Amino acid sequence: MMRDLYLHRDSERGMAGTFDWLVDEVEELGDALNGSDKEELEKEFADVIAWLASLANITGVDLEIAAVAKYNHKCPKCGCSPCECTF
Amino acid sequence: MMRDLYLHRDSERGMAGTFDWLVDEVEELGDALNGSDKEELEKEFADVIAWLASLANITGVDLEIAAVAKYNHKCPKCGCSPCECTF
Repeated sequence: MMRDLYLHRDSERGMAGTFDWLVDEVEELGDALNGSDKEELEKEFADVIAWLASLANITGVDLEIAAVAKYNHKCPKCGCSPCECTF
Repeated sequence: MMRDLYLHRDSERGMAGTFDWLVDEVEELGDALNGSDKEELEKEFADVIAWLASLANITGVDLEIAAVAKYNHKCPKCGCSPCECTF
């Protein structure tokens, strides 16, 4: 969905600029976490995953494939589900 | 998936600590973007979305619902798909 909506703009902006936007959105999410507006919090979560997807699109990474490759229903460190790491 | 794997640990760590982890993972993603290791880059994308999901889980936000509520196949600013914002 983000590819359809924004790839043309994300490609123009480029990797560094898109990463900077992601960092800004994470900061805004941090601010929303300290507030009490649930709707605002949900919007900030939406923005972070949106910008993360934009960044993935312009770097040729499929976010879902990458996530499932590392976290495939088990913890990549202990191999258990749920995670049983003791550290 | 992240709820099944890590909610017990994420809940113990709490919101502030989990947000700090997310910020660290975003920094690591930034480092990977400047490298040339595609596999490492994919793992860092996986970690960012994983920690974002962990944070959403402990704050009671459904990441998918939040994302689709804001970006539902059209740009929330101009209402178009693809986005036609002129700024």
